[in-house]
Amino acid sequence: MQKFELTILGSSSATPTSKRNPTAQLLNIAERFFLIDCAEATQIQLRKFKIKFQRINHIFISHLHGDHYLGLLGLLSSMHLLGRTIDLHIYCPKELQEIIEVQFKYSETRLNYKLVYHHHNYINDEVLFEDDKVIVSAIVLNHRIPCCGFKFTEKPILAGILKEVIDFYKIPVEQILPIKKGADLILNDGNIIPNAKLTVQKQAPRSYAYCSDTCYDERIIPYIKQVNLLYHEATFLHEKEKRAKETFHTTALQAGMMAKKAEVKQLMIGHYSARYKDLQPLLDEAKTTFENTILAIEGEITNI
Amino acid sequence: MQKFELTILGSSSATPTSKRNPTAQLLNIAERFFLIDCAEATQIQLRKFKIKFQRINHIFISHLHGDHYLGLLGLLSSMHLLGRTIDLHIYCPKELQEIIEVQFKYSETRLNYKLVYHHHNYINDEVLFEDDKVIVSAIVLNHRIPCCGFKFTEKPILAGILKEVIDFYKIPVEQILPIKKGADLILNDGNIIPNAKLTVQKQAPRSYAYCSDTCYDERIIPYIKQVNLLYHEATFLHEKEKRAKETFHTTALQAGMMAKKAEVKQLMIGHYSARYKDLQPLLDEAKTTFENTILAIEGEITNI
Repeated sequence: MQKFELTILGSSSATPTSKRNPTAQLLNIAERFFLIDCAEATQIQLRKFKIKFQRINHIFISHLHGDHYLGLLGLLSSMHLLGRTIDLHIYCPKELQEIIEVQFKYSETRLNYKLVYHHHNYINDEVLFEDDKVIVSAIVLNHRIPCCGFKFTEKPILAGILKEVIDFYKIPVEQILPIKKGADLILNDGNIIPNAKLTVQKQAPRSYAYCSDTCYDERIIPYIKQVNLLYHEATFLHEKEKRAKETFHTTALQAGMMAKKAEVKQLMIGHYSARYKDLQPLLDEAKTTFENTILAIEGEITNI
Repeated sequence: MQKFELTILGSSSATPTSKRNPTAQLLNIAERFFLIDCAEATQIQLRKFKIKFQRINHIFISHLHGDHYLGLLGLLSSMHLLGRTIDLHIYCPKELQEIIEVQFKYSETRLNYKLVYHHHNYINDEVLFEDDKVIVSAIVLNHRIPCCGFKFTEKPILAGILKEVIDFYKIPVEQILPIKKGADLILNDGNIIPNAKLTVQKQAPRSYAYCSDTCYDERIIPYIKQVNLLYHEATFLHEKEKRAKETFHTTALQAGMMAKKAEVKQLMIGHYSARYKDLQPLLDEAKTTFENTILAIEGEITNI
């Protein structure tokens, strides 16, 4: 099975603590490395967890609060100083380009690689990236400033055909790809062998949805429906619901409710307020509405 | 004796390593806290070394290479979120104001405290800050982009008068301050008691000079002459002299030479290239030209 794994690099909300860094995540789908948000010290976290950061070719920035992008300049600069020459794609609010360019202007930095900007249009389901293995699409979030979540979905994976089956039916080479894609086999005598008898079970395409930062907003449900893993921010306990609403954040209870209504397989909560030294109450609260919940913990890898 | 101590928060040059962060230092003179440069993750280092960063009221930024200021936005933001209301003074290249303001504009951040900018004029010995205890003045450095070093000097400390002396000569209250400042005592009979007989030895004002980033340039000598501690960058070993020259940096041997020619009491080297896992060769090399040299090591406190 191809890799589909998420590494948490930062789990705190705006104010970091001595134990938690602000938001950044690394997603590896079939050896494509996607960086999702890039808070201050992300390059330090990447080093700490021994991740080769030159393998990152696509960086997704949700919005322009500092705790989601302030590590970007340093990372871009280190990539340059360590010899990068291949293009780097950044999916971001258009204003980030200005922020990057003004700083490179005054530092007289000329990168040895190309930065390719893809500005957010804030349209649900818009395809932001696509190759032969992965599609990334937009989820419009509801935050104090424009904010975009991301859904990463595997392309359908071709079925397998056992060697014994090929030999038994003497399947010609040119028929193998169509059968893997779902065709039946028509024998010389006109008999039809249905695809299900020829192929081994396909694995359903897996998906990961990243929703941070946002208040509780059910309008995102169609775009995160039945994903394998939903990351949803849960900045506060529900006793701080008023504060959550004012600051366009979500409570742990609400994150669980969202997971339940969207029928996702698993929920990961994160973006914890610095006030919570112990995360167990946040986890317990989310579980009251959605049992299969886990905590975003820095350095931990989740297989999706 | 009043405090005059330097804490190293970051010691690496542009590319951090898993062991070293880029440049930041905290200087405490008589409980005034000065932050000197503010690389990425400075706020994390401040937390790690348990420094109450709201006590910092003055931040000095030498120049606009990212490894000297990229931690500033995050620190300013955390100061705000943690309730700061008192003014914060930033001494910096004027372009930094634009860099800060564009980011606060797009994040819709309105600080609850006032940022007071003091733009560099790049004039040697210009007084940047002064109060009753400390004077900070500019040192014009020679780097790829405009760069300013800083000299922190204690104000002359008043002499002490022993209580026994006051009682013996029956010194009137209004005479005490003039004597502390150096006056002799004229007795009623016209006799003069020289100041040296009345006061206990003054401590000579101490000074710290911060010189990073810069190539070797003897024009700074008059402005760092005989300081108690000189921090001078030493990015490379002297075998990389050509590379140092090209990149407007200094070698360890040159830093030692500078310390010798400026007749400073002690030299601290830092801003190490990531290529040096072991710093001992840099220290050894600087000591060949200036014996009283120490290494900048993160978390270590040097009493000046």
